[in-house]
Amino acid sequence: MELAKPSFIRESLKLAAEPNIISFGGGNPDANYFPADALLSACEEALRLDWRNALQYAITEGNIELRKILLALMEHIGISAELSQIIITSGSQQGLDMTGKVFLDPGDKVIVESPTYMGAINAFKYYQPQFLEVAMDEQGMDMDDLERVLNAHPDAKFIYTVPDFQNPTGRVLSGERRRRLVELAEQYDVMVIEDNPYYFLRFEGTGVPPVKAYDKYGRVIFLGSMSKILSPSLRIGWIIGPETALEKYVILKQAADIHTNELSQRMVAQFFLHENLDQHIALINKQYKVKKDLMVQKISDCFPAHISFTKPEGGLFLWLELPEKIDAQEIFQCAYADERVIFVPGETFYANGGHRNTIRLCFSSMSTFEIDSGMDRLAAVLKNFIS
Amino acid sequence: MELAKPSFIRESLKLAAEPNIISFGGGNPDANYFPADALLSACEEALRLDWRNALQYAITEGNIELRKILLALMEHIGISAELSQIIITSGSQQGLDMTGKVFLDPGDKVIVESPTYMGAINAFKYYQPQFLEVAMDEQGMDMDDLERVLNAHPDAKFIYTVPDFQNPTGRVLSGERRRRLVELAEQYDVMVIEDNPYYFLRFEGTGVPPVKAYDKYGRVIFLGSMSKILSPSLRIGWIIGPETALEKYVILKQAADIHTNELSQRMVAQFFLHENLDQHIALINKQYKVKKDLMVQKISDCFPAHISFTKPEGGLFLWLELPEKIDAQEIFQCAYADERVIFVPGETFYANGGHRNTIRLCFSSMSTFEIDSGMDRLAAVLKNFIS
Repeated sequence: MELAKPSFIRESLKLAAEPNIISFGGGNPDANYFPADALLSACEEALRLDWRNALQYAITEGNIELRKILLALMEHIGISAELSQIIITSGSQQGLDMTGKVFLDPGDKVIVESPTYMGAINAFKYYQPQFLEVAMDEQGMDMDDLERVLNAHPDAKFIYTVPDFQNPTGRVLSGERRRRLVELAEQYDVMVIEDNPYYFLRFEGTGVPPVKAYDKYGRVIFLGSMSKILSPSLRIGWIIGPETALEKYVILKQAADIHTNELSQRMVAQFFLHENLDQHIALINKQYKVKKDLMVQKISDCFPAHISFTKPEGGLFLWLELPEKIDAQEIFQCAYADERVIFVPGETFYANGGHRNTIRLCFSSMSTFEIDSGMDRLAAVLKNFIS
Repeated sequence: MELAKPSFIRESLKLAAEPNIISFGGGNPDANYFPADALLSACEEALRLDWRNALQYAITEGNIELRKILLALMEHIGISAELSQIIITSGSQQGLDMTGKVFLDPGDKVIVESPTYMGAINAFKYYQPQFLEVAMDEQGMDMDDLERVLNAHPDAKFIYTVPDFQNPTGRVLSGERRRRLVELAEQYDVMVIEDNPYYFLRFEGTGVPPVKAYDKYGRVIFLGSMSKILSPSLRIGWIIGPETALEKYVILKQAADIHTNELSQRMVAQFFLHENLDQHIALINKQYKVKKDLMVQKISDCFPAHISFTKPEGGLFLWLELPEKIDAQEIFQCAYADERVIFVPGETFYANGGHRNTIRLCFSSMSTFEIDSGMDRLAAVLKNFIS
């Protein structure tokens, strides 16, 4: 056990708690929009209906009522599945850890986007795979490059993708590429792990269905999450996939934590029954668009030239590429020490490291005042590094 | 990934949900005593105080206020530790899984009681250890046999014990043996994993402090749980151990589920601040003693002779040993099919199998009426197997 290093992002949560810090690190939703009253009512209702079972041990697969509710939500975005094809997880992070447990032995090959979600790198890393990176552009994972990698490594165990408002880049995989991704997976007999916590956080433009919606073959395992649309604290995620795979996840979950917090599962179910999720999400997205627009505006107005950046239509993040010789770790140290503003250096999102000239900025968790001031401060630091 | 089989106990939860089944399987606390009103108030209070942080991402180590409360609870039973020596887990089952992750590589040796908790066997099994069983008697793990095993296998990674009201036998490790266990661990340079979810469920006799209270060397990692004294649904456990070990657990927990449900952690903290846990536990224990006494009485009165059984002073379980050639799996099939009463055949609690003539009975989850009737039904089945 000498594989894992503390997550930079989780550790930076501690910095973010220091006074007067403006944090564009982490990946926190805006806490001001958590529906606290509705969740308290949901707790009351869950207990009123059946407090004995709401507080007792429960089945590993997850609360049946919640699973049915989530199946309906998924149906709405193009994913059809049966009750036996969905399980609840303790956040979608648990889905990632179990994916490693189910599929990986040391030395196995995993295909990831370059860059990709660092929580997935950390989860898989324990199982000692070899990471194969696939290039991205503004349309998401490059399918020609994916085919090249699959050709060179036909024994790869799975392809991991965050297709919507990717963490860290904010990019969206195009519909045409989703179709081709599924076909390539079938052709090369490999699974696709679709990690999609940001799907509903689209605040402009037009979306395409999840990759799983294109899956005629049972090749795609979809990971969903309540963390970004309701509350991360409750740690409620879900997995939709072929029954044969899910049976393995359930066995591992029994050994890992028996089941996910049952009271919270029932709270989420009651929230869905009594509240309007679409309205709640619309409220969040309206705020996030304002914040993203402001951040983009500040970059355009105040940052040095020669910085390219994404302009995401949803999610929580945007992504900066600085001139090649610039080291974002050094910028981080100065920004933290001199200007009390933090972010995540992009190298942590590359499975095999490198790309030290990249930066992830989270626009969701700070207020517009803090974004305004924090981007000014960051601009001041950047000007010392980039002429 | 072809190691794990579905947990018999978790699967039998599904049988237990069938109509008219009397279940002495599972290990459920009596749901009638869950403090539902107090937990709803605790939820309200946790949200009222700071709903933004109660619903947000949180640190992996666990809520600081809850950890301080648990440190005070532990101090009370003889365990002294600092804030850096306690972390919150998603139930103590997660503590077991992470213990395997931290300490075990394939082929490593793990010392367990014979029999031992099957959830621990399942958690460790994924990491492919060799299980070494140590004999037990009415005073718990036999220390001479432990020394013999340590002598033969000085490279063992840890000794796993459930010292109080052991699952499955209900036995308690004597104080003298606790002292010797710690000394042997020091002498042979091996860790002790003390899994102690039942410590507070003593309803008669006099207890001894946890093994960790005897630990002068930093050899013992203590796993605690809210599941038996408050509610299993909330999945709140804790680990107390040396900082060097806990740092590894924290890194793995980051990758496994980021953090434990933060709202529930705050609910438990509020429960402790506003309710009297001692009183609540006294109430539970009073009922459990009545049920245990009834079950012991029924065995004495109605079961065939030649069955030996434990008479636990606490916990949830008692343990039967039938004459040697009797197969409890066969009894299970008849009891389920003919009499609608279920239990757990004891073989599942032996890390290397065998001992098919043993049975675990849970006395906590059924009412006294159901115990009365269920034991009559079980007696009728047993009489067909044992003359």
